Amino acid sequence: ATNGPRLWDSLMAMAEIGATANGGSSRLALTEADAAGRALFGQWAEAAGLAVHHDAVGNQFARRAGAEAVPPVVLGSHLDTQPRGGRFDGVLGVLAALEAVRTLNEHDITTRAPLEIANWTNEEGARFTPAMLGSSAFTGAMPLAEALARADAEGVTLGDSLATVGAAGDTPLARDFDAFFEIHIEQGPVLEANGVEIGVVTGGQAIRWLDVRVTGRAGHAGTTPMPARRDALFAAAELAQTIERRVAETDGLLATVGECHVEHGSRNTIAADLRFTLDLRHPDDAVVDAAIDDLRARFAAVAERRGVDCAVEPHWRSPALPFDETCVGHVREAARALDCRWQDMISGAGHDAFHLARHCPTAMIFIPCAGGLSHHEAESIEAEHARIGADVLVNAALARAGR
Amino acid sequence: ATNGPRLWDSLMAMAEIGATANGGSSRLALTEADAAGRALFGQWAEAAGLAVHHDAVGNQFARRAGAEAVPPVVLGSHLDTQPRGGRFDGVLGVLAALEAVRTLNEHDITTRAPLEIANWTNEEGARFTPAMLGSSAFTGAMPLAEALARADAEGVTLGDSLATVGAAGDTPLARDFDAFFEIHIEQGPVLEANGVEIGVVTGGQAIRWLDVRVTGRAGHAGTTPMPARRDALFAAAELAQTIERRVAETDGLLATVGECHVEHGSRNTIAADLRFTLDLRHPDDAVVDAAIDDLRARFAAVAERRGVDCAVEPHWRSPALPFDETCVGHVREAARALDCRWQDMISGAGHDAFHLARHCPTAMIFIPCAGGLSHHEAESIEAEHARIGADVLVNAALARAGR
Ligand SMILES: NC(=O)NCCC(=O)O
Ligand SMILES: NC(=O)NCCC(=O)O
Repeated sequence: ATNGPRLWDSLMAMAEIGATANGGSSRLALTEADAAGRALFGQWAEAAGLAVHHDAVGNQFARRAGAEAVPPVVLGSHLDTQPRGGRFDGVLGVLAALEAVRTLNEHDITTRAPLEIANWTNEEGARFTPAMLGSSAFTGAMPLAEALARADAEGVTLGDSLATVGAAGDTPLARDFDAFFEIHIEQGPVLEANGVEIGVVTGGQAIRWLDVRVTGRAGHAGTTPMPARRDALFAAAELAQTIERRVAETDGLLATVGECHVEHGSRNTIAADLRFTLDLRHPDDAVVDAAIDDLRARFAAVAERRGVDCAVEPHWRSPALPFDETCVGHVREAARALDCRWQDMISGAGHDAFHLARHCPTAMIFIPCAGGLSHHEAESIEAEHARIGADVLVNAALARAGR
Repeated sequence: ATNGPRLWDSLMAMAEIGATANGGSSRLALTEADAAGRALFGQWAEAAGLAVHHDAVGNQFARRAGAEAVPPVVLGSHLDTQPRGGRFDGVLGVLAALEAVRTLNEHDITTRAPLEIANWTNEEGARFTPAMLGSSAFTGAMPLAEALARADAEGVTLGDSLATVGAAGDTPLARDFDAFFEIHIEQGPVLEANGVEIGVVTGGQAIRWLDVRVTGRAGHAGTTPMPARRDALFAAAELAQTIERRVAETDGLLATVGECHVEHGSRNTIAADLRFTLDLRHPDDAVVDAAIDDLRARFAAVAERRGVDCAVEPHWRSPALPFDETCVGHVREAARALDCRWQDMISGAGHDAFHLARHCPTAMIFIPCAGGLSHHEAESIEAEHARIGADVLVNAALARAGR
């Protein structure tokens, strides 16, 4: 069994890096704070006898040799956070994997296949888009050159940021993995509401990111009669209400406008160039795509009536996908053996495991978080749930890697 | 009579400084571009025999001696622009005053009272708020220390910016003026629609700037059920629609939301902290204030229903005000003498003349602009209207200053 207090201490120590005023963490990918988090994890991994190495997009790996020179069973998640994120989103997946290794070390267990811990670069998609960028470059979903060229809001590229913090290495991309297991907080309310400790994740829902740009006509706030205006902001407000109404028509459909920006905005100038982001999700790809078609039509009608232009560009598309039956079975067996309460479920959030699932057999483990709250500084979990999750992880990994 | 082509050449030369891709100008107050505009005006003024001097907030003056050592008749406006502004807003008022002086020089006319040209600092309110900041510090409406401490969006203060571009001097604030005349483009559609060349401005409308802050709850875009959300952005969209509807209920009421910002915004995080600006105007102070009361009540109802907080803070208040009958009379007489088409009107935009009107007898002259478009790169005027306006200005100034 894993050591719950040791895992908790590691989580709390990592949370000190980029700690925010309200009890959260702020470690945007490849910033100084993220670099400090990577360094601390690297020290811990080396102290546990692991060999730390990096690939060309800064994915960080820590390797424990196996009895045979076969492809590794990989456990992991990410250490980057939202601008004002919680202490567990991603972090739990990396540090529970470390706890699994520490436990195997204590019991002098050598696995047949090597084990590796992965800390994937820029999972959150908050500094560089899209989310899960490191794992997408690793698995080849995104070409390396494109990944390195992605720029943040200030125009700094991922490639330049890697160089600044010294996070890139020469471990080959797309090398063979035997399997990938990721433990994560649910980030939603289901497990807590059901009084369940472990979610056996059977797959993930469809995600779409869109960029909406509304172009109106600038003008003077004090002299332009209301009927003569083509106000991009008032138009965007109606589009946002249109989104809210459309989403209410379909069960399980989710919509979020997380960013909104008036270009060259000024208090006394009518907004002429406004951009906002749109995140749409549903377990069924066809349902999301139908909603997008609807929204395009409804947006066009609003734009026409208001005399503004409205352009809707796809930014990122992550299809719904099922995990590997065998790996999901290992997770389910491990939960069953522990005699905890568990249930099957799908993931609402995107995870690196989605990319890995196209590269090697993959599965995920969820634990509850308080109130389902995530991407929030107040994100919180029970230490006991973290410990149970780490137990499930180590047992699923042992079942796969052999001993 | 003034020299129309010479005035036009000066306008076009000034427009080269901070010229934008779409034919406008970008000279935010006390930036390098604004400093270059000030320097060019200073050169022209000295070449016309004027003595250039500055006060503690960077208001730039160019003095032409009179026959008597009495308070000056002052003509002017501003050279700063919106982020993407036009070529005439403010600039016309400074360069038509220069053209007036050049014309008096050519005719060897010495006025009884001295004449001064004023280029007021930060009129637009786009870099530092509020608008008309330089004239408000000059006249004492805002204490000097407060003016110097105003900070731009990056936190740079007006005081530091003055030091960087070397724009401050020791001419006393609040010194006596005999009168102030400002010529400006109308920035609205009235004169053009009426086929009139000169607006005799009898006063200005009420302006209110408000800051609205909506506080919701952050959460994950992929896992938080729609009914469980307290989304600050969807709430703000409903507030914007509320503003639009309220404004439509009252004739002549204008509302503009020119800036909108999600703090720590991220595509996959529910917006939790959103701010937007609100500019409200009407010729009658009581009508604007009643609209604000209404909006506060309607905002509170929306916030309550959506489980968000909504705070509405006053940012700036500029009351409606009439100009001086005598000075307005000088403008009207000058227009009548020129045999041009003119009409009385009030100003929709705020102008430095609003502050000066509380300091000395003041009046304004408007000329038409194409389509009423302003705070837009495509702002445009007829050279002939600029020339007629400069003629009205020089004749009104002569009537006041004596010869
Ligand atoms: N786990 C997580 O929050 N990932 C960010 C990607 C997403 O938007 O779902
Ligand atoms: N003239 C002008 O555009 N001034 C800016 C102040 C205002 O917002 O009316």
